Order: sequence, then structure tokens, then C-alpha cells
Amino acid sequence: MVVRVGVIGVGMIGEDHVRRLSRVLSGSEVVAVTDVDPARAQEVVGRAPGARLHTSGEDLIGDDDVDGVVVASWGPTHEQFVLACIGAGKPVFCEKPLATSRRSCERIIDAEVAGGRRLVQVGYMRRYDAAYRALKATVVSGSIGAPLMVHCAHRNPSVPPMFTGEMLISDSAVHEMDLSRWLLDEEIVAVRVLEPRRNSRAPERLRDPLLFLFETSGGVLVDVELSANIGYGYDIRCEVVGESGTVSLGDEGELRVVREGVRATRVPRDWRDRFLRAYDVELQAWLDAVAAGGCTGPSAWDGYATAAVADACLEALGTGERCIVTLRERPDLYATAR
Amino acid sequence: MVVRVGVIGVGMIGEDHVRRLSRVLSGSEVVAVTDVDPARAQEVVGRAPGARLHTSGEDLIGDDDVDGVVVASWGPTHEQFVLACIGAGKPVFCEKPLATSRRSCERIIDAEVAGGRRLVQVGYMRRYDAAYRALKATVVSGSIGAPLMVHCAHRNPSVPPMFTGEMLISDSAVHEMDLSRWLLDEEIVAVRVLEPRRNSRAPERLRDPLLFLFETSGGVLVDVELSANIGYGYDIRCEVVGESGTVSLGDEGELRVVREGVRATRVPRDWRDRFLRAYDVELQAWLDAVAAGGCTGPSAWDGYATAAVADACLEALGTGERCIVTLRERPDLYATAR
Amino acid sequence: MVVRVGVIGVGMIGEDHVRRLSRVLSGSEVVAVTDVDPARAQEVVGRAPGARLHTSGEDLIGDDDVDGVVVASWGPTHEQFVLACIGAGKPVFCEKPLATSRRSCERIIDAEVAGGRRLVQVGYMRRYDAAYRALKATVVSGSIGAPLMVHCAHRNPSVPPMFTGEMLISDSAVHEMDLSRWLLDEEIVAVRVLEPRRNSRAPERLRDPLLFLFETSGGVLVDVELSANIGYGYDIRCEVVGESGTVSLGDEGELRVVREGVRATRVPRDWRDRFLRAYDVELQAWLDAVAAGGCTGPSAWDGYATAAVADACLEALGTGERCIVTLRERPDLYATAR
Amino acid sequence: MVVRVGVIGVGMIGEDHVRRLSRVLSGSEVVAVTDVDPARAQEVVGRAPGARLHTSGEDLIGDDDVDGVVVASWGPTHEQFVLACIGAGKPVFCEKPLATSRRSCERIIDAEVAGGRRLVQVGYMRRYDAAYRALKATVVSGSIGAPLMVHCAHRNPSVPPMFTGEMLISDSAVHEMDLSRWLLDEEIVAVRVLEPRRNSRAPERLRDPLLFLFETSGGVLVDVELSANIGYGYDIRCEVVGESGTVSLGDEGELRVVREGVRATRVPRDWRDRFLRAYDVELQAWLDAVAAGGCTGPSAWDGYATAAVADACLEALGTGERCIVTLRERPDLYATAR
Repeated sequence: MVVRVGVIGVGMIGEDHVRRLSRVLSGSEVVAVTDVDPARAQEVVGRAPGARLHTSGEDLIGDDDVDGVVVASWGPTHEQFVLACIGAGKPVFCEKPLATSRRSCERIIDAEVAGGRRLVQVGYMRRYDAAYRALKATVVSGSIGAPLMVHCAHRNPSVPPMFTGEMLISDSAVHEMDLSRWLLDEEIVAVRVLEPRRNSRAPERLRDPLLFLFETSGGVLVDVELSANIGYGYDIRCEVVGESGTVSLGDEGELRVVREGVRATRVPRDWRDRFLRAYDVELQAWLDAVAAGGCTGPSAWDGYATAAVADACLEALGTGERCIVTLRERPDLYATAR
Repeated sequence: MVVRVGVIGVGMIGEDHVRRLSRVLSGSEVVAVTDVDPARAQEVVGRAPGARLHTSGEDLIGDDDVDGVVVASWGPTHEQFVLACIGAGKPVFCEKPLATSRRSCERIIDAEVAGGRRLVQVGYMRRYDAAYRALKATVVSGSIGAPLMVHCAHRNPSVPPMFTGEMLISDSAVHEMDLSRWLLDEEIVAVRVLEPRRNSRAPERLRDPLLFLFETSGGVLVDVELSANIGYGYDIRCEVVGESGTVSLGDEGELRVVREGVRATRVPRDWRDRFLRAYDVELQAWLDAVAAGGCTGPSAWDGYATAAVADACLEALGTGERCIVTLRERPDLYATAR
Repeated sequence: MVVRVGVIGVGMIGEDHVRRLSRVLSGSEVVAVTDVDPARAQEVVGRAPGARLHTSGEDLIGDDDVDGVVVASWGPTHEQFVLACIGAGKPVFCEKPLATSRRSCERIIDAEVAGGRRLVQVGYMRRYDAAYRALKATVVSGSIGAPLMVHCAHRNPSVPPMFTGEMLISDSAVHEMDLSRWLLDEEIVAVRVLEPRRNSRAPERLRDPLLFLFETSGGVLVDVELSANIGYGYDIRCEVVGESGTVSLGDEGELRVVREGVRATRVPRDWRDRFLRAYDVELQAWLDAVAAGGCTGPSAWDGYATAAVADACLEALGTGERCIVTLRERPDLYATAR
Repeated sequence: MVVRVGVIGVGMIGEDHVRRLSRVLSGSEVVAVTDVDPARAQEVVGRAPGARLHTSGEDLIGDDDVDGVVVASWGPTHEQFVLACIGAGKPVFCEKPLATSRRSCERIIDAEVAGGRRLVQVGYMRRYDAAYRALKATVVSGSIGAPLMVHCAHRNPSVPPMFTGEMLISDSAVHEMDLSRWLLDEEIVAVRVLEPRRNSRAPERLRDPLLFLFETSGGVLVDVELSANIGYGYDIRCEVVGESGTVSLGDEGELRVVREGVRATRVPRDWRDRFLRAYDVELQAWLDAVAAGGCTGPSAWDGYATAAVADACLEALGTGERCIVTLRERPDLYATAR
């Protein structure tokens, strides 16, 4: 079965999904496109033979030729489009964040639960990275014993001048929030955010780096160094410390060059360089699930729980204090193992 | 454009190509299948909706619905099918070897040259491996200086009992023959094959390991350790030594596990484990070229030149002597940079 | 000049120092030995030709043939022997801890300052480890920018059943306290001690692992994972994160073995396996300084400051709260760059 | 016991041995020095308190205060001094080469055998490198199966303009000759020397790099890349390929720096940077053996066998042909396991 996809929002990430759906993945066809900027949408449609331009997301969602929807528009619009998809009974792949507030996420959960079946997948693409998957498989295998701690680093070469501390939480650290929950299969119950010496390379007024500390329901302690302006490249690290061993992401890359006194391996330039393939795998998994009539992957619950952790981090920011994360009861719809 | 593909031969590798063309790659459809074993072909057709069963390769090649042909049948049949494709003016992707004799390869070259355009791509998939491509890019960049030597190791965990020394050359070392030519953009002009102490784990009478030495037209010396029964895994190494630096394939993998006194990374189990993704990239590149009306990648000339090197190795085997590789003049059709 | 050394306390570490001074290092002679267990002392004297048995540390310190003293006795005795050495104007190398209370350390500082010259070196041997020295040299060089964070792990395969949380601080984490101060050339001004999920392999009632967080006067944040029962080996890690790069201890070791599906490097078994050579370098540096009439290396101030940090950690243990470290004013005697 | 050492020849390496014996190692005293350049000898004596100046090597050897002799003079003088030491019944540590011709080596062997006990140690210091020792221990342990091949690289940043191809053999490759024999405990029975494309950075007329191929009595094949002008640093590699695994020297070093897009480890600058510590261990082992009244380490036989292999390589150079190494019968004196 070929899945006919409509794409809402064709900015950088949305346009890349159109390319991916049209020219990389198997079993999909982009049949509909819309964007808040019609000229932009028109341009993308021009490069996707067979795609039709829609004037609104609701219009696109209502198109009978659309089997599934990709939401890649501006964050504040996610809730309305995801709710519309649920209303139309159509599978929706929503880029992170699921919604911009905890309350919005709850409305989505309520709607999905009322409908009685999962329709929403949230775009936490790191879960589809081969290395992270192998990492989780090792943890689950028990070969390092029960996990006790996780050490993470999330380093960006730089961020734009307007970047705020809030965005370090909601745009960057959010990845480690979701991953910690997924790797450990436990919720995060408390957080701390500490502020090391400020990097003078950071945009003025931005507290960078930050050190996050997450406690899970099982007592695992996760520390996350978030460095947004380290300059040298995009560097993602993760080590799970178990009772009798550890497992960590390799980072040596595919080549080794020796010259001018050093043995060197390359650091990825940016997140595309590191995670591009994960986006392919992620969206193919969504297509395969849609073709099979189901929905898998990160759920609306994952979007909600992560939003709750981010809220607690925002509360903790600047205080050094421990803040509690509270979650509503988990609906049965999301009870299946991730 | 969707490329409609016919597949000749659906043994292990052919069947895998059907899966790849149907469920992994973008822009292809398997419309025709044939195999020397009709039951086998029928079984594969049953899993590829829209594919038709053909009673012979020639029949399949003549089918107007077939835009391009994948030849994955038994080696001795390659020549006839490739020639038939050339005759029909259809692009053909032929698994290695291009043909089982140097003379056969020459007939293919003659036919393709007579037709005046490239239609043949040979399945040297390592050229599509991301690490090898990055390796070549580094060599070409000049950052390690002009290449002087290449050190390779090609290690298999084991080979079946019937494996012969000839097969170590034509099935295994053939990869390093093609890669050396491609990495250095020079032909191999002489070879030696040395026989170290025999591995007692090898099947009886098989000389294993072997050490190959290739000299290129520019004087680069390539040494290749071929170990067919090393047991521990599938391990492919390549280091290019330049005038002022070296570049080599990384081999640390995606994970690092520390337990029981050792830090460990995993060795691939077999060639699938190591090169599976390269097959995807290779065949997608072929599809994209076919859709664009052209043909790229390893050519019939590459198939021929590699066959000539293999012949020289067979001659050298058991003697320890240096054997010369002779090639006919290279037709202009194959003059473009690889 | 040959330095004639007297050794007080010949338990495991003291006996090893006798061996080192007699058979490994240059320019020393062990002339006097004493121990609380006379039989033990007699045994060691028997293996050190030219050494004389003393009935007490004070007696040994007063021996005119003794140029310098090594104190390797039980911690609670350190203060009296170090003070006696200062009183006698003799250089003393004192194994850590300098003394078992902050107040004791202050008395030593007072005595040394009163004497007007440095006589005390404390046995923080990691400062003499080649890798840590190279790490510091890189930090000081400025090539990674100003340091912002330090990530450490200190993992032991196991500890004896009687080990307490206090000992995790005063015997284990004390190394990272001194090293952080030395690497950054800043004092630690506040600490936190967090308790991840407990390792079920740890002796009953021992909270293990712990996560320490140190803040320095310049705002650098140091996190230290202390795992006392990780089983797999002795693993010491340290990464300094600067404004534009990082530097970390290598840990790949001298050999790489590939077999049975893995590439492996060896983890040290214990601290001897990892730091044995650092003890040689440390004590040779002390001998050379003594022969030159001076005293270098970790000072009584370093012993005192570390004791103050340890006190704050003890206060913080079990609370999760931030505790302040207070230090007296630093005497000029200890003002020289470390 | 303090070994009183006389040093013949105090050029760069000899002077360094004087420093080592005086200020680094345990249990030695330099009591006598001589050099073909009396001013040079006088200068060194001035820095070695207690050492006496001798006008000739024979004079020094005859000095009753000299317990053991270090020969670090010009190669062509080695034979006479070593023979004189044997004649005087004194242990002698002779820097490589043992002698400059195979015939000279044989005379030394004859003299030592006639005396009935080993007095000669040859300065193959790599056998005392911790990594090579661990490598050999792994091979001997059987954990990688019986060795079949050895891959070596010996890379120098540069050599002086007057360097000749003969010196690449007798000064550089000689290390791998000795090491191969030691690692495998087998003699080398045949050699080939191949000439890859010439490095344009090499001094004019020098064929550089070279590829050596050694066959041992047990059929193990050793390949050695010798690159004398690779510029980037001093890089020594060795991998032993066994029937079921491999073991190789680690080369990641003690630090890892990440900056400007690369993760880097440092390559040693030169042989001192890489092997300095091995010289300490080597000479301490000699001192300990002398103090114990014996002689261990690389023997006159090792010096002789290596000279024979070097002779065969000289014969093979420029021909590409296989040359046989012939050895006289091995005297019982050298029968003990190495």
C-alpha cells in the first residue's frame, strides 16, 4: 500500500520531510501540502509532482485523498492540527513539541483516549537512531546490570543570538528528557538545573552551559550537560552506568585520519550531520505502521510527560533547587511497552 | 518516475533485492521475476504484489513493462543476460562477477561500446559504503599527500567446506581489487600472492590466509590480508598511507560496553551486518540514474579489469612470483572519471 | 646526594615505599624503619639492607642519619609525626590524609608557617600521573578555552564489607577534591552529594554510588560519579569541558585484542594497576626536592583544603542540599603557584 | 649491591645512559667514562660525580672498579670492546648493532661460548616496552590462537639527508627483525623487500617507503611498512594475526582532545617520545641481572641472527626477489627460552 501523505508546514524541517517522503522512503506519496506562507507552499508543491496545494491545515486534513498527516508547522499550531486529525480519524506524525503547553497535551490525550485508538506519533527521532537503539537493547539485555545513573552531554556548536534559557530546555534538553524515559522505561519524578560558569562565547544574557539532573521513579539519576555554544561541533554523548558495567554511544565515526602530529576523527557539524538517517528510519516506521493500520512510536503520552518535565525544569531554572514533576494518571491506551 | 524493475535470479541476494526494491527504496516497483527454479520464483512473486512471473531471463528482458533489469542469477549466466539487456537497450544492474571469464567481459564491453552508451552497472557495493566514500574523499582531497601504499585486511569468520583457493580470489579478494582501483583511480599492473602459515581452522586443503600484493600503474603498493576462517567475526580494514599522513576506516562501531574487565566494541558478524546499508545506497543510486536516463557506478570496464587482476592472481597462486596484469586499451566510453 | 630516608609505618603502602626507595628510585637509601607492630617492622628491615629498626616514630625522626621521613602509618597518627618532623626541621612525605580532622590540619599549617619554610608534602599521587599532568597542561595552555565544567568518574570494583559512606568521601572522593583544585587552580566553595539508585552489589547499608557536585571559586562545576562496587574493574575518568573544546583522560590502554566478536581493551584491575607508576614519580620528585634542599608538590594547605571539602560533603550527605566550604585565609607560605 | 658501571662512548645515547644510571635507576653508579673525543668525555665526567675519565675503552674495561660496561660508541668499535669485556669476564651492555658484520658477530659468539657463560646483552630496547611485552604475553597465552601473520608499520617523521637505503635496513627495520623473532620465538628464514611509489618528501635518491616481508621458520609471514619521511610523527604499529583473533599495540595515548571539529589524540614526535621509558626498564633489567651475577635479555645470538636477516635484506633490496637467510647452528649457550 502506498500511503498518501499531506504535509502541514513546509519550513526547513517540513520541506525535508517532503523530500524524504518523495525520494527516499518506500511506500509513500506526497499528495497535499499547505503552509502559512502560500508562496512557500506553492514552491514545494512545484517540486513534488502529484501534490496539491491546500489553503489551510484543516482543509488538507479533510482531503479524502490524504491517508496520513505530517505536522511540521509552528509549535503553537500543533494542538489544533493534531486535534483535527484525531477528529478525522487520521494518523498524524507531529514534529516535537506535541504542543506548547502541558494543558494542550492533555487535551490531545483526552481526544485520543476518547477515540479509543492511537493516532498520534511525536517526532522524537533519536529513538530511531541506530546507536541509541543498540544502547537500549544492551540496557534491556541486563548485561550491565540494573541501570543506576546516566551521564549525557548535548553540545551544540552555537545557537542564534535570540536563544533563551527556556529554549535550552524546551528545544534542546527535551531530547534527553524523552530519551531518559525511553531508555529506562521510567518516568522522571524530579529535576534540578545547575548553572556552571558561563561560556563567554554564548549570546549575551544566555546562561550556557547548564547541568540538568533528573531523578526517575526508580531512583536512577540522569545528569545532562547542555552546552549550546561549544564551537567545536555537535557532540552527543550518553553513558548508562549499571550495577556491573556501563554502555555508551560510540563516537569514533567512520574514518580516522593521522596527520600533523595527531590521530583524528571527525565531530559532526550539526544535528543533521548526526541524526539525518534517524529521520529516515523514523518516518519509514510511521509509514509502515500507517500502512498496517496502526500507530507506534513516541505517543501523545510521551509528548505530555516530556512537557511536564520541561515545566519542572523551567521552574527549577535559576534556583538550584529540586522541583517535583507531577503527572496525571496514565491512560490504558498508553500502557503498552514502548 | 517509478522505475519498473525485472529481477533475474531470486536466490538469497536476488530475493533481498526484491525486498529492497519493494519495501526500502524510493521510486521503484518490481514488475517481473524469473528464476531457474520456477517454484522459488513463484514464491517470491507471491510476496511482491504487482510482479509477474517469467519463464526465462530473455522473456523478462523483452517485457515492455520492464524499464531496468537486475541480474542476480548464477555467475555463468551473467554474460548472456547482460548481453540481452544491451541488445534490448535496457539498463542492467549485474551482481558481481560481471562474467566468469575475461573473454566474456570483453564481449560485454564490445557490445556496450558498439551501442554507444553505458547500460551496465556492476554490483561492487563497497563503493557505496559511507566509510569507504569518506575514505576516498580524504585521499582525493590531498590532505594526506599522494598515496603510496594501502594496507587492507578482509577477514571472514568462516567459509563453507567446499571453498577453494580460487574462490578466495574470485569471490573475496575481488572486492579489494575493485576498491584499490577505485580509491586510487589507477589500474593494477602486477600481483603477488603469498601464503603464510595455514590456519588449522580452515577447511582441509584450503590455503588460508593469503597475502595479496598489488602494484598499480602509479607504483602504489597494496597489501591485502585475506583470512577466510578467523572465527571472531567479519572484519574489513583499509588504511591508505600518503606522503604525509594516513586515513583508515574507523572500526569502533556505535556502542562501547565496559564489563568484566574489558572495554569492548562489537565486530560485525558477517558481510550483511557490515554492508547492508551499502546495498540500499547502491541500488537507489542505480534507480536514480535509470530514472534520469543514464547509468553510473562501476562499469563493464571495472568488471573486466577486475577479472584480469583475478586471472593474474590465479596464475600467481602457489608460486610466490610476481605476475603481470595485461589489459586491452580502454574504450572512450569508459574514460569518464569514476 | 643520596637521601637517607626513615619510614614510619610499613603496612601495605609503607612497605611498598621501602621497596620503591630501595630498588626502584635513584638517590635514596632506607636507613630507618618503625611500625606499631615491631615484628612487621623487623621483617621489613630484614629485607632492606642498611636499615635500622626504631621503636617509635619520634625516635626515628630524631635519628641524625635520617634526612627525610615518609609517614605511612595509620591516619590518626599522622598529625603527631608530621608535627614532629616540622619540629625537627626535617622534610616529610605524608601519605593522605594529612590529618584526620580539619583542626589537625590547621595545627600543621600553623607549625609549618611558624617555621617559615615548607617541609610537608602530602601523598596525592594522582598529580604525578602522566595522563593527569598532560590533561592539566592542556587546560593551562588555553587550547580548549576557559574551563567551565569537569566530569569525573571514580569506579572501584568493590570495597570491603565494613566500608561506610564517610569512607567513600574521605578515602575515595578525596582524590577528585584535590585534583579539581589542582587542575583548575581554584578552591572548592560549595558541594552537593546526591544519591542515585543503590547498587545491590554494595555491602548492606552502604549508599553506593554517589554523585558529588563541587562548585569552585570561579564557578566551575565538577561532577564526580563515585561507584565503589561496579565489579568490572578500576576505572578513572576525567573530562574538562572548556569554552571551545574538551580534554579527557585516554582510556584505551596499551593493547587491543580482537576475538570472539569483540574488540577489547583491558580495564585496570585496581588502583595499583592504574597508578603504580605515579607513586614512583611522586616519590622521586620528593627525593629530588629534598636533595635540592626544598619541598614541592601537594602542600599542607592542600591537605587542609581537601579536609574542609570532605567535611562539607559529610555534612551534605543524605540531604541533597548545597553546603558551603569555608577556609581560613591562605598563608603566604602557600601562595606559590602549584 | 650497587653496580659500578663504566660507559664507553658518550654521544647522545651514551650520555643519556650516564644520566639514566646516575639519576633515574636504582643500584648503579657511573665510575668510569671514556670517549673518542676526550673533551666530550671530560664534560660528561664533570656532571657525573664520582666518575673517572679513561683514555681508552680497553683501559676502562680493565679498571678493577668497573663491575659492568656499557658500550655506546660508534658501531664499528663494538666488536673490539665487547670482545675485550668477554676477555675480562665482565658483563657488557652493547647498544645495537652488536657488530657491523655478520662475521664480527660470529667472533663474539665464539668468544662468549668459549667462556662458557653469557656476558653480552644487546640494546634491543623495544623488548622492554610495556606494550610490546603485553603483546607478547597475549600471543604466548594462546588466546588468539597460533600466530599466522604480523603486520607492522615503522614510521619516522624524517631522516637526515645522508640517509641511505642500507641504513633503513640496518638502523630502522632491524628493530622489527629482532621483534619478530622475539614475539614469535622463531628465526626468520627468508625475506623480500618491495619498493612502493617513492615519497617525494624523502631525501633525493632514497627509496622510501619500503615494504619488508619476513618468513619465519614456522611459516609466519611478517610485513613491515618502513616509512622514513612521513612527516606527521613517529608511529609504531604491530598487529599479530592468530588463528582466531588478533592483538595489536594500542595507540590512543593518554589524552583525548576535542576541538575545532575533531577528536584528537597525539602521535609521538620521535623515538624518544615513544620509547624513553623502555630504555629505563631495559637498563634496570641489565643492572639487576648484573647485580645477581647473571645476564639476561637479547643475547649475542640475537645480535647475530638479526645481522644475518639484515644481510639478506640488503641482498634483496632493489630486486623484489625472495632471499634466504642462513644461520650457523645455534650454540647451547643460547638455547634458553627468551
